[in-house]
Amino acid sequence: MQDLQDLKDMKDLNKATNVTLKEAAQFLLSHDDFVIISHANPDGDTFGCSYGLCSALQKAGKRAKIVCADPLPANFFHLKEAVAEQEFEEKTIVSVDIADTVLMGKLESVYGDKVDLAIDHHLSHIPFAKKRYVDDEAAACCEIIYDLIKLLGVEIDAAMAQCIYTGIATDTGCFKFSNTTRLTHEKAGELMEYGFDCAALNYRLFDMKSRARIRLEQYALEHLDFFAEGKGAIVALNKQLLDTVDSEDVNGISSLPRTIEGVEVGVVLKEKEDCWKASMRSLKINVQEICGRFGGGGHLNAAGCSFKNMNIEEIIEKVKAAIEEALAGQA
Amino acid sequence: MQDLQDLKDMKDLNKATNVTLKEAAQFLLSHDDFVIISHANPDGDTFGCSYGLCSALQKAGKRAKIVCADPLPANFFHLKEAVAEQEFEEKTIVSVDIADTVLMGKLESVYGDKVDLAIDHHLSHIPFAKKRYVDDEAAACCEIIYDLIKLLGVEIDAAMAQCIYTGIATDTGCFKFSNTTRLTHEKAGELMEYGFDCAALNYRLFDMKSRARIRLEQYALEHLDFFAEGKGAIVALNKQLLDTVDSEDVNGISSLPRTIEGVEVGVVLKEKEDCWKASMRSLKINVQEICGRFGGGGHLNAAGCSFKNMNIEEIIEKVKAAIEEALAGQA
Repeated sequence: MQDLQDLKDMKDLNKATNVTLKEAAQFLLSHDDFVIISHANPDGDTFGCSYGLCSALQKAGKRAKIVCADPLPANFFHLKEAVAEQEFEEKTIVSVDIADTVLMGKLESVYGDKVDLAIDHHLSHIPFAKKRYVDDEAAACCEIIYDLIKLLGVEIDAAMAQCIYTGIATDTGCFKFSNTTRLTHEKAGELMEYGFDCAALNYRLFDMKSRARIRLEQYALEHLDFFAEGKGAIVALNKQLLDTVDSEDVNGISSLPRTIEGVEVGVVLKEKEDCWKASMRSLKINVQEICGRFGGGGHLNAAGCSFKNMNIEEIIEKVKAAIEEALAGQA
Repeated sequence: MQDLQDLKDMKDLNKATNVTLKEAAQFLLSHDDFVIISHANPDGDTFGCSYGLCSALQKAGKRAKIVCADPLPANFFHLKEAVAEQEFEEKTIVSVDIADTVLMGKLESVYGDKVDLAIDHHLSHIPFAKKRYVDDEAAACCEIIYDLIKLLGVEIDAAMAQCIYTGIATDTGCFKFSNTTRLTHEKAGELMEYGFDCAALNYRLFDMKSRARIRLEQYALEHLDFFAEGKGAIVALNKQLLDTVDSEDVNGISSLPRTIEGVEVGVVLKEKEDCWKASMRSLKINVQEICGRFGGGGHLNAAGCSFKNMNIEEIIEKVKAAIEEALAGQA
């Protein structure tokens, strides 16, 4: 196993990485007074990483705290159990799950050029830290944090395990997405054994919906406009509607149209202050390319773009036409 | 590991089990012309078991086929890839995931007293077969089938692995439920490596919804009646509505009310020919006890009961009162 890890470390050194995981652990053990940065628009993985690592560093006798441009969403409040609040003068800056300083949001100006160690799993990682460990084969950055914590030699407890599990489970859509590997399952299985209530956590992370979210889904489904013989589905959510719900309630709503049988491309349009933002989802069509035509981007399966100075009817017409063309090209 | 397995086998011998898994494998290898029975109202686990085991027996040079009181639902059509259709005179009868002959449905009269080997994971298993292997610690019966196939010494291929994964993933709610163990994750991780498209399968099993299902959910959510300060939620689906959708579209609808934040007990009432059937779900309240009062039963978290010769308003009133009492008792 050690040889395999060394080989992997060597391979990674050719990419964004310039330290091995062992060196990253040694760095953490030989420093103190840590600030751990999570990315803006935070998700379960970036917060799972920061709370898990903060907990481990505190257990190793260090002072550590977490910063993020945005607050911790209510469905991740359980992560707070793992760490103690500490006040101290910041000396060592670590970023987790951050591919680019711009993703720090408003904290970029504070920490962007000061990161001592970046731990990340994005293929698109743009080196910005003095030391970097990047493994794009990890389904979640929490998979790396878990291996790193083991190297720190601290005792993993239930609260810490819960943080790491949260990141792994959320970044893989509860082990459903194609980034899930055998290692992902093995690590999740190991973490469960530390004794947190995994079923209750999964319920909160994946099954529980607020009444506001239910109302939003109801509206979206009722107003869904099917086109291209049912292969396309589009819906527009205006600002007035979106203002009635919390941002947490809107998370993931873009995936809703594409869960309907037969729908190959799903689009959700959300009205912002000065534009409409489109989110496209597909398992069959390259939506990155479609969004690219409108100046947007993203991944093959999930992409987005913005429309300014156009009314919603015009936007819907343009989006439908582009998707119909892509669907026709595929046939 | 072998010692642990032997210990486990010995422990199991004190329960419904009267053969070890090794003996079950030896039995299969020394017989032929198999009929594998799945339970009525079939789910992913019972069909995952029967298709997985049938595939393995055929690979071992045996003749084998599958029988079930009900047809294979469309969302499990992928299981068929694993087996060849064979015609032969039935000689050896094996049941999978069946706790009691009554669960064979209309096949009970044909096979109820003829089962040579029963493989099951229900604590409630009532011995009916000549040979039985029952492990109630297995999250899914497919976990047992996987170990059994390994003992048969046949090469596991992608189609066979997909059957076993289907059973494990569906019986654990995609690794979310409390029956999930470290072993569950380890087995799922191993199975993924046989090379089927796991993400596409997970999408079909867990995320894809028919338009009819969406309509049914819409109706249920719109007509949900909250009570006990939002801790209870109940909805009645009449026969006229249920007749417009396939049975597959109704599967799992009972869990819907309890996914709403704050709801501790969710109830879905479905109108049948001559009665109303209630399904109760809760993570906090013993719904088995509540359903028991009305002559029903089930598990602590998921139970059901029937009401005859009562109008729906009367039923709802009785159910609400029983739940309010249980919630008050808990406080």
